[in-house]
Amino acid sequence: MDRIPILKMGPFLLVTIQVDMHDRLAMTLQDDLTSRIADTGARGVLIDISALEMVDSFIGRMIANIAGMARILDAHTVVTGMQPSVAITLVELGLSLPGVRTALNVERGMSLLQSFLDDSDPLVEEPSPVDEGAGAGPEE
Amino acid sequence: MDRIPILKMGPFLLVTIQVDMHDRLAMTLQDDLTSRIADTGARGVLIDISALEMVDSFIGRMIANIAGMARILDAHTVVTGMQPSVAITLVELGLSLPGVRTALNVERGMSLLQSFLDDSDPLVEEPSPVDEGAGAGPEE
Repeated sequence: MDRIPILKMGPFLLVTIQVDMHDRLAMTLQDDLTSRIADTGARGVLIDISALEMVDSFIGRMIANIAGMARILDAHTVVTGMQPSVAITLVELGLSLPGVRTALNVERGMSLLQSFLDDSDPLVEEPSPVDEGAGAGPEE
Repeated sequence: MDRIPILKMGPFLLVTIQVDMHDRLAMTLQDDLTSRIADTGARGVLIDISALEMVDSFIGRMIANIAGMARILDAHTVVTGMQPSVAITLVELGLSLPGVRTALNVERGMSLLQSFLDDSDPLVEEPSPVDEGAGAGPEE
């Protein structure tokens, strides 16, 4: 296993972490992901960790790093599929995953990213309401 | 690594194979996937193998098996992200992946599955054209 695949799904990138992360793999993932964000203009990153039964401070820091890098490249990061036991461990360890939003599953994560997109994209902003009656005399 | 995560994306299930498959893992994946199809009523399965640098007859047979099981449960299977070298090897080995469609990447695979869905779903079939002129006299 040289690298973790990054799947493009519309405006988002999806990464499924299934294997134990070691130093080199984490570095490769950071490099690959930032390159892909730059290449594709992706606006969001989904990191699915449903396969992980344990998240230690190393993985926590890696996820926080990725989120920080993605944010600078104008992409939001959502971590999905965290197992309840992992959530318990993270809180007990005092790891707060700064800058990272979470969602229960990939579908909700995508909705969350989509809502960020809708909020920030001026192209989909609602046009200001036009005063249709202005200038026209009232009918009597 | 006990099991490969299965991600639900709308009416489809996405599986990313990143690790070397062994016998037990393949059996677990088949069990999990068929259960998930039955539970969720998924209409398509995407198997991304972009991380695999080699597909041997064991993995080829596993993918064909999954496709066969999915088909019985009324779901299509699309394999995505195959590396060129893997395609060369498969042909040279004479492995034809029966019953499996392929797509270059996950996005195209989703479009393909969506097209199967559109073709098969009677709810989205176009209504038969109504002869609007019938019964009405011609205007003269």
